Amino acid sequence: MSALFVHDAERARRIGLPEAILCASKTPEQLVLVLERLVATGERALLTRLPPELHAALPEALRRLLDYDPISRTAFLGVADPPAAPARVAVVAAGTGDQRVAEEAVRTLAFHGEAAERHYDVGVAGLWRLLERRERLAAFPVVIACAGMEGALFSVLGGLVPGLVVAVPVSHGYGVAEGGRAALASALSSCAPGVAVVNIDNGFGAACVALRALARGR
Amino acid sequence: MSALFVHDAERARRIGLPEAILCASKTPEQLVLVLERLVATGERALLTRLPPELHAALPEALRRLLDYDPISRTAFLGVADPPAAPARVAVVAAGTGDQRVAEEAVRTLAFHGEAAERHYDVGVAGLWRLLERRERLAAFPVVIACAGMEGALFSVLGGLVPGLVVAVPVSHGYGVAEGGRAALASALSSCAPGVAVVNIDNGFGAACVALRALARGR
Amino acid sequence: MSALFVHDAERARRIGLPEAILCASKTPEQLVLVLERLVATGERALLTRLPPELHAALPEALRRLLDYDPISRTAFLGVADPPAAPARVAVVAAGTGDQRVAEEAVRTLAFHGEAAERHYDVGVAGLWRLLERRERLAAFPVVIACAGMEGALFSVLGGLVPGLVVAVPVSHGYGVAEGGRAALASALSSCAPGVAVVNIDNGFGAACVALRALARGR
Amino acid sequence: MSALFVHDAERARRIGLPEAILCASKTPEQLVLVLERLVATGERALLTRLPPELHAALPEALRRLLDYDPISRTAFLGVADPPAAPARVAVVAAGTGDQRVAEEAVRTLAFHGEAAERHYDVGVAGLWRLLERRERLAAFPVVIACAGMEGALFSVLGGLVPGLVVAVPVSHGYGVAEGGRAALASALSSCAPGVAVVNIDNGFGAACVALRALARGR
Amino acid sequence: MSALFVHDAERARRIGLPEAILCASKTPEQLVLVLERLVATGERALLTRLPPELHAALPEALRRLLDYDPISRTAFLGVADPPAAPARVAVVAAGTGDQRVAEEAVRTLAFHGEAAERHYDVGVAGLWRLLERRERLAAFPVVIACAGMEGALFSVLGGLVPGLVVAVPVSHGYGVAEGGRAALASALSSCAPGVAVVNIDNGFGAACVALRALARGR
Amino acid sequence: MSALFVHDAERARRIGLPEAILCASKTPEQLVLVLERLVATGERALLTRLPPELHAALPEALRRLLDYDPISRTAFLGVADPPAAPARVAVVAAGTGDQRVAEEAVRTLAFHGEAAERHYDVGVAGLWRLLERRERLAAFPVVIACAGMEGALFSVLGGLVPGLVVAVPVSHGYGVAEGGRAALASALSSCAPGVAVVNIDNGFGAACVALRALARGR
Amino acid sequence: MSALFVHDAERARRIGLPEAILCASKTPEQLVLVLERLVATGERALLTRLPPELHAALPEALRRLLDYDPISRTAFLGVADPPAAPARVAVVAAGTGDQRVAEEAVRTLAFHGEAAERHYDVGVAGLWRLLERRERLAAFPVVIACAGMEGALFSVLGGLVPGLVVAVPVSHGYGVAEGGRAALASALSSCAPGVAVVNIDNGFGAACVALRALARGR
Amino acid sequence: MSALFVHDAERARRIGLPEAILCASKTPEQLVLVLERLVATGERALLTRLPPELHAALPEALRRLLDYDPISRTAFLGVADPPAAPARVAVVAAGTGDQRVAEEAVRTLAFHGEAAERHYDVGVAGLWRLLERRERLAAFPVVIACAGMEGALFSVLGGLVPGLVVAVPVSHGYGVAEGGRAALASALSSCAPGVAVVNIDNGFGAACVALRALARGR
Repeated sequence: MSALFVHDAERARRIGLPEAILCASKTPEQLVLVLERLVATGERALLTRLPPELHAALPEALRRLLDYDPISRTAFLGVADPPAAPARVAVVAAGTGDQRVAEEAVRTLAFHGEAAERHYDVGVAGLWRLLERRERLAAFPVVIACAGMEGALFSVLGGLVPGLVVAVPVSHGYGVAEGGRAALASALSSCAPGVAVVNIDNGFGAACVALRALARGR
Repeated sequence: MSALFVHDAERARRIGLPEAILCASKTPEQLVLVLERLVATGERALLTRLPPELHAALPEALRRLLDYDPISRTAFLGVADPPAAPARVAVVAAGTGDQRVAEEAVRTLAFHGEAAERHYDVGVAGLWRLLERRERLAAFPVVIACAGMEGALFSVLGGLVPGLVVAVPVSHGYGVAEGGRAALASALSSCAPGVAVVNIDNGFGAACVALRALARGR
Repeated sequence: MSALFVHDAERARRIGLPEAILCASKTPEQLVLVLERLVATGERALLTRLPPELHAALPEALRRLLDYDPISRTAFLGVADPPAAPARVAVVAAGTGDQRVAEEAVRTLAFHGEAAERHYDVGVAGLWRLLERRERLAAFPVVIACAGMEGALFSVLGGLVPGLVVAVPVSHGYGVAEGGRAALASALSSCAPGVAVVNIDNGFGAACVALRALARGR
Repeated sequence: MSALFVHDAERARRIGLPEAILCASKTPEQLVLVLERLVATGERALLTRLPPELHAALPEALRRLLDYDPISRTAFLGVADPPAAPARVAVVAAGTGDQRVAEEAVRTLAFHGEAAERHYDVGVAGLWRLLERRERLAAFPVVIACAGMEGALFSVLGGLVPGLVVAVPVSHGYGVAEGGRAALASALSSCAPGVAVVNIDNGFGAACVALRALARGR
Repeated sequence: MSALFVHDAERARRIGLPEAILCASKTPEQLVLVLERLVATGERALLTRLPPELHAALPEALRRLLDYDPISRTAFLGVADPPAAPARVAVVAAGTGDQRVAEEAVRTLAFHGEAAERHYDVGVAGLWRLLERRERLAAFPVVIACAGMEGALFSVLGGLVPGLVVAVPVSHGYGVAEGGRAALASALSSCAPGVAVVNIDNGFGAACVALRALARGR
Repeated sequence: MSALFVHDAERARRIGLPEAILCASKTPEQLVLVLERLVATGERALLTRLPPELHAALPEALRRLLDYDPISRTAFLGVADPPAAPARVAVVAAGTGDQRVAEEAVRTLAFHGEAAERHYDVGVAGLWRLLERRERLAAFPVVIACAGMEGALFSVLGGLVPGLVVAVPVSHGYGVAEGGRAALASALSSCAPGVAVVNIDNGFGAACVALRALARGR
Repeated sequence: MSALFVHDAERARRIGLPEAILCASKTPEQLVLVLERLVATGERALLTRLPPELHAALPEALRRLLDYDPISRTAFLGVADPPAAPARVAVVAAGTGDQRVAEEAVRTLAFHGEAAERHYDVGVAGLWRLLERRERLAAFPVVIACAGMEGALFSVLGGLVPGLVVAVPVSHGYGVAEGGRAALASALSSCAPGVAVVNIDNGFGAACVALRALARGR
Repeated sequence: MSALFVHDAERARRIGLPEAILCASKTPEQLVLVLERLVATGERALLTRLPPELHAALPEALRRLLDYDPISRTAFLGVADPPAAPARVAVVAAGTGDQRVAEEAVRTLAFHGEAAERHYDVGVAGLWRLLERRERLAAFPVVIACAGMEGALFSVLGGLVPGLVVAVPVSHGYGVAEGGRAALASALSSCAPGVAVVNIDNGFGAACVALRALARGR
């Protein structure tokens, strides 16, 4: 149904990840069609990249079925899985501008019952505050790191914690950092061994990496 | 000691990953210095990107201490950890040209006691053979996929198996695929949710992602 | 008359393809001029990349002569050739976001009397549904495939069907996939032999490739 | 068996294209293995990108089974299909530097029983000579055009002949034309409608496009 | 006074080219300041890249002193030099979308008393019409060619006429042609010897090249 | 508190540079939060990239505490340090379009008590005026140079003055100069030895380089 | 006959430029063929990009017919036109590394009877020496400028002399200047009006621009 | 005399920096010429990028006048200035592969009488060791940092020390880090305010930045 993750119960069963609908490139008409089909079959789904205007353009009846969060631009169709304690994923954001992407990861995890612990405003520019949290962050099996600009956070984190570090380059920045390209290059070239990278701004993808890594369960 | 991962017991303790020495940009003299320091302190280390010429240029005495593999261009200084059964990582290579990178991952895993199951020559061009192995591959918590050219393997695998898929773009190919750039773009843009990406040709890094993800242990 | 395909009866006769007018970079005044000249000489033409605003800015009298489709942003000036049965072209779209480009191909074919069979929402993410249609798709002499993101569809299709596969990279996607660049690279680097590629979003061009390939007739 | 087109009778049957082995990224040992497996099963194969050094490094016994052409760097294992007359493909090369790629296309066609008519040294710089051949070229259902530098040949040809024009950008040239990038951009941006493009230097791929387009037979 | 060509009588005297003011990156306040200074000293100037909105934002009194042309987005402050006959420059535009750039060249020439002969809609797609004009175009000492998309016009013209060919890549086109990059690459890689290139959309610059080349007078 | 330079008294103490808040990627709500926290603790801060709309969206009470300059898009929260005489930094701008970036540098310096002497409209196009000022500019320990287009100013200045030359590429220009890329490449490749470069449009960063270089003080 | 400028008396007559043979991408066998054909018909030709090894590989008999210059890598087949006095072209090179390209221009001019005056080692780094020559350079109708690195020379020259300035970016330099890309961007973005640009290292092309501009004769 | 820094006593006097000769793009003959001219006039000079082969190709008599260092590939012609104590510049290298560039900076400083303190093998991967040295590094007015891969060192250092931080991206690394591009992007996008950047591998340039910044003397 989404441009990419078409309603595909078969696939969901195979890879253990839920229906997700990338809304950005859909017209309101196309999105309504997708949602009505899901509602008709009683399926749950996670909607990503749903801008407020597109959300507002949906019929009232459909909007009422959605749990929408304007910061992460995500919506839940159907209830999220109950969160399991304790949190197994830490989500780190270097700055204010990285939080929308971090929240996309947090919401994706929440939909699948994984609680996340937020560590925001702990970029390399404030190295001391990052170091203070080292021990706490080192306890998580997965740490998702969101950073734009030069993305030095990925390498620093990768050298501090033993868990799986998932780097999400973020598209703020200007000049050579425009569109997140410098942060992406940093993430892929990291001198810290074993940093896993996803596409720019792809908080959803980072959460899916975490879900796959944690699948072997509690 | 490596250009990047200098002899740093502190760091190794923190992130649980071993000493690794990237040999490519070292002169024989520099490499000898690094190795002698390690030998003196009795430390183990994994050497990566050690070309045969550089290996041959090492003093006989040092060479005898190294378990060298010319295909993956890796060497072990000290004995590898004993392999635990059963294998928890599958390493998939699309074609013959991807095997040297796949072997770097296999050897890195082996050094840390993780056995890997090889699935070579199962690219998208031979889709049927890939599908035949779906069930077997779906049983692994981690699947490392190595592919050059257009890297369609990453998306196909990501839609077939529930485990953590680590994509390693490989630098063979020509024209727009030169240097692995097309495969890298494919990996990062994959329509399959939750594909984790490492730098081009970085079999070592992919293995480290696997080691981090598997750290919570047996 | 178009910026590119100026009213050129001579050329049309030579290559057997119709007048086509790329409207995107024209002012309303320029477009009116072009259309009036065609109307005066009684010629048919296909208009592409005609956005609704530009269409709405045309004089009522001209608009009434146009068969306009807002999804593909195409218009017919004059009647389309009657469709010949059965369809010789299949048009495959990976997701909802690819349909506007797919429809440009369908409309271009229709204008020249080639019927097309639509296969939408059959991307690699839903591999099972694609495989189910393999036999049906294999019966077409030409298959036009439209996909954005990583464009894995092109390679999978190229390995499944014997006909001419025309790959149209689509400009949706974000980060490294932005503007369709990743899909274009995938199409050109495909491991499947004999995939023919056209420019990003060029559904019109893909249809013209099909028309040239099918010209030897029924 | 090739890095890409693994020995895969199933696939060959599906898409109607023969075994092809991309030799460039193989070691002599790997190539010998592939060839011996083919010889054992009595299969034919087309070898591409086989440089003279690699050819020379093969055992005498294997070399005797190969029909090797050093200009196109191709070899036939097994006999080519008998050529059908008349030729249905014209292969046009803009200059001397484009001939090695053009020959790869010619040889690929020959292996499958399609004769090709060569039109070399007919680039845009010698426009008059190209125009003189217009009528002759217009008679072919498929015209493969090989050009480096700025690739103006693709657009000029696309406006002159009604057949399927397959553009092969060639990697000679320097400065902004280096590696064939300018020619590739030209091919994809052509103002002539319906030019089909393959990767830089991919004469093999262009021939496969032709074979797919001509498959509906004589 | 322009961001670039500051009011600089000294320089104008040295290189024989007039005051030119690039308006695009100026605020209305900055532009007013520049113009008032020129008016105060009684100097003439050519304004380029003056969008209608910025023109409209100027005070009525200043606007009355300007001879403004909205298509080329140029304005004359002060009277143009009287045109000398016959025209020594031909300005060729491949399509409708190239005309705004071609007109910038025409207006720049006009301001300095050089008449230009327009040859619009004579791109490579309509090769026959271009060839019909060969003799006429061959009579000009300078031919300015404006083309977007793949820019094949530059090479074709360069092989047809003996005069100085100045190539202006134009920023229409999409996909790989976006922003005029493909046309720029074509212009610089042209197989025709001696094509002079200016920046994308730089009709003003092409006219200045012509003025420099023609300076040795009538 | 800024996306990047979070309120971090510790860091400010370490590197001797003040709180700076990059406003561009913040929502009004996020910015208000940051400012209120600073006001509560009585801290001063420099706000950069604060567009008029965002400034206007702040509550009246906060706006009254800010010394806002719409050209440089900077604001002071709290009073600037008193300026020390004489000025130790010259700020050179090639053209009108470079002044907004130059002013960001001037304001950043002013906030920290460094007076700057402006030299605007002295680009290479007006070389004579630049040469006239050589002696005056040569007296400054630091010269900040702002230029877009081809950035020739950096090399010329670097060869004329002995002080530290800080090059700020500016993002005006079009075609190959778009986004400041040509000016950045020029700055980094300068044939004048010892030109220090900062990111495109980063007037703030250039001022910080100056502050670091001048820290050893009066 | 060259890959690009095939033996084409018709074209030479049309554009008034001589036979030129780009040798770089030719095998010795191909080059011999081309030369023998020219010798047989008694035609003159200019050979460019002829490396010493390729020259040495020619048969002695042919070599004796060539006037070869190893620095510019050019050869004359047949005698050059007698040089007309005085020189109408100045060739300026910024540094030692630019001289091989400058010499290609000088030799191309010489072959056609245009004398050139060399001004070497007058880059922007030695601005004073460039200014001293201003008057002399200003007397030439055409000035060819060769520069690598940041190419500031093009803009400085363009602001100093009234003649046609032809910029040849040169491929020395490293980092962002690698391959001449920074110099090319500078040339195209020059703030000096009317700088004509040719491809990187294309001294031959610059000379052809000069020949076209000077064609109207003495 | 060098391609770039021609023997230019005037310039040296103006900017206070010595003769430097970039040797890389010179032939042995050209270099000998340059050196003989310097010897004749008794001038000192710093030679950079002098590979061992080129050094070895110099006449014995000249070689004896040079103080050559093969690691930094620099040579002194004439004696270096006596080093002043204490060192005012710290040179930090992230890894073994960065030392050749760091040494170029150290030697350039030494030639001008500035002692440098080396801090090698202190990259971000060994963050603890970097932090241990913070206080020591914070005492230097200038810190030159050399790093390849992702260049996280620049941001971390920029947040730790108050002095002028000069970032030198180094061209080791592979995949997206190839050629130093990722490190360069990191340096320019640094979240630490006031990091000054020079071209990739430009240790010489970084030292010149330091010399300019320190010129105001002891």
